[in-house]
Amino acid sequence: MNTRQFLLTASEIEAMVGEEKIHFLNPNAQRINKSLGDAVGLNHMGVHMIYVEPGRDTTEYHLHHYEEESIYVLSGSATAVIGGDRYKVGPGDFIGLPRHTVAHNVINDGEQTLVCLVMGQRLAQDVSDYPDRGQRLYRNNGEWNLVAHESITDPRKK
Amino acid sequence: MNTRQFLLTASEIEAMVGEEKIHFLNPNAQRINKSLGDAVGLNHMGVHMIYVEPGRDTTEYHLHHYEEESIYVLSGSATAVIGGDRYKVGPGDFIGLPRHTVAHNVINDGEQTLVCLVMGQRLAQDVSDYPDRGQRLYRNNGEWNLVAHESITDPRKK
Amino acid sequence: MNTRQFLLTASEIEAMVGEEKIHFLNPNAQRINKSLGDAVGLNHMGVHMIYVEPGRDTTEYHLHHYEEESIYVLSGSATAVIGGDRYKVGPGDFIGLPRHTVAHNVINDGEQTLVCLVMGQRLAQDVSDYPDRGQRLYRNNGEWNLVAHESITDPRKK
Amino acid sequence: MNTRQFLLTASEIEAMVGEEKIHFLNPNAQRINKSLGDAVGLNHMGVHMIYVEPGRDTTEYHLHHYEEESIYVLSGSATAVIGGDRYKVGPGDFIGLPRHTVAHNVINDGEQTLVCLVMGQRLAQDVSDYPDRGQRLYRNNGEWNLVAHESITDPRKK
Repeated sequence: MNTRQFLLTASEIEAMVGEEKIHFLNPNAQRINKSLGDAVGLNHMGVHMIYVEPGRDTTEYHLHHYEEESIYVLSGSATAVIGGDRYKVGPGDFIGLPRHTVAHNVINDGEQTLVCLVMGQRLAQDVSDYPDRGQRLYRNNGEWNLVAHESITDPRKK
Repeated sequence: MNTRQFLLTASEIEAMVGEEKIHFLNPNAQRINKSLGDAVGLNHMGVHMIYVEPGRDTTEYHLHHYEEESIYVLSGSATAVIGGDRYKVGPGDFIGLPRHTVAHNVINDGEQTLVCLVMGQRLAQDVSDYPDRGQRLYRNNGEWNLVAHESITDPRKK
Repeated sequence: MNTRQFLLTASEIEAMVGEEKIHFLNPNAQRINKSLGDAVGLNHMGVHMIYVEPGRDTTEYHLHHYEEESIYVLSGSATAVIGGDRYKVGPGDFIGLPRHTVAHNVINDGEQTLVCLVMGQRLAQDVSDYPDRGQRLYRNNGEWNLVAHESITDPRKK
Repeated sequence: MNTRQFLLTASEIEAMVGEEKIHFLNPNAQRINKSLGDAVGLNHMGVHMIYVEPGRDTTEYHLHHYEEESIYVLSGSATAVIGGDRYKVGPGDFIGLPRHTVAHNVINDGEQTLVCLVMGQRLAQDVSDYPDRGQRLYRNNGEWNLVAHESITDPRKK
């Protein structure tokens, strides 16, 4: 086995061509995404280096019912929105969201590119909510089902 | 809900009292461990800031059968041992070990404190091997069973 | 520990008061359900003795994306509908549905009470479809979300 | 899809050639095993029709740490040993063992072939104990590790 495949040096990460990602619910959520985890073959957790320009959101404000997620800021400054509250964050700050707690987002309202390490579980099944859009996403083994909150009923309640 | 609990600033991390950890199989594997994940309430992934002094190992050379693990070097320089091969690593380098691939360790053979962010799955069940000690550890829902490789047989092989 | 709790004799099963169940999507799906599994404390699989009167359906025609299910007929005769095909079944016949294959139902079109042992996985997360009703049920840790198929979109397809 | 594959009639079950199984720790634990679940393609639960001759044990006395198991007696009479206690069982009796409770076995001390339906979870990872042999079996993704209880230590206890 070629053991070198499990190592990415800083300059290799620098040289990686990132993927441009725009969130399907938020055209202002734009980032360059380099999946370090995928590059070394991790399957069950995601580790991403993300680059977000000033004025952009890292993602759409969301809450995972199952997947835990965390963010470590490497450079830049931003506002983290956590359960509706706003916090200024900068290099060396850490945000971690246990499953099914509160929604969050990180907005680059600084003047530099925001660079973060984003680490999360990669589960076969998850449910996430987008409270500002009134939408829920069910992910099950690669199938994505997006549903408006108002289309969901509980069959046990009459 | 107090949303501030999900954020740790750099200065709060600095101020955290770390846990001194010595590996049960390797008295030279000594580190200060600050569990950022535990501090914000993550249950299903571990995110740790580790501090390792020159001459020390971060852990005992090991291989997880199930838990994926990754390391991002923040400062210092070290030698990563991956599947028996040795690589120099420094700030901004990333190591990721998919499950059941090769054993690894990181040795601080530099002159500064090595500081890394260590991120991994936290599964209820795992098996890990310590090839240099001829030992296997079975972890099942909090119970730890350590067994010498030579005490293990396969009942299907006669 | 009282070990007697893990045993249910035939006469104890006979004496159990079953639960009358009517499916929320099918008023003709009526049965008496005795959960043998629950009675002895099983948490991760369901084992049910079900009693279905002539003319009734055991359940609504459905397909599980995750939970495997199987049925062993003890007495009576019925028609099993499996993926749209109809099969006569009687005592000693066995039906098993691997996950995400085809929808099924069992209809008591005989003249006696149909008695079956129904055995299935009990997962924290499942998705099931009711093709004749155009509905999908997402079950996640006790929360039930029923959604019409026509309200579901795939956000990755534009 | 051929939907007939999900149905096994009583006469097809009768005609199946069973597998002769002898437990690796108990030469008297002999049975004929017809896996109904495998025959219809179930992957995540086992459903077996077992046939045990007078004087034989169905299996070795054991306890699963994870896999739930249950037994429904179809014909014959036997003694169930549950957590050291002995109970006479016969047709229509049900035994269910929640995970990590007590060890059990079923011994055919009657005069007829004992026929049972055995239903259990089929997990990728399990630990089971054989208290009368002082052995523990770790099963992890198809690898079987048998270890004497006396070879197991807890590295956290010094």
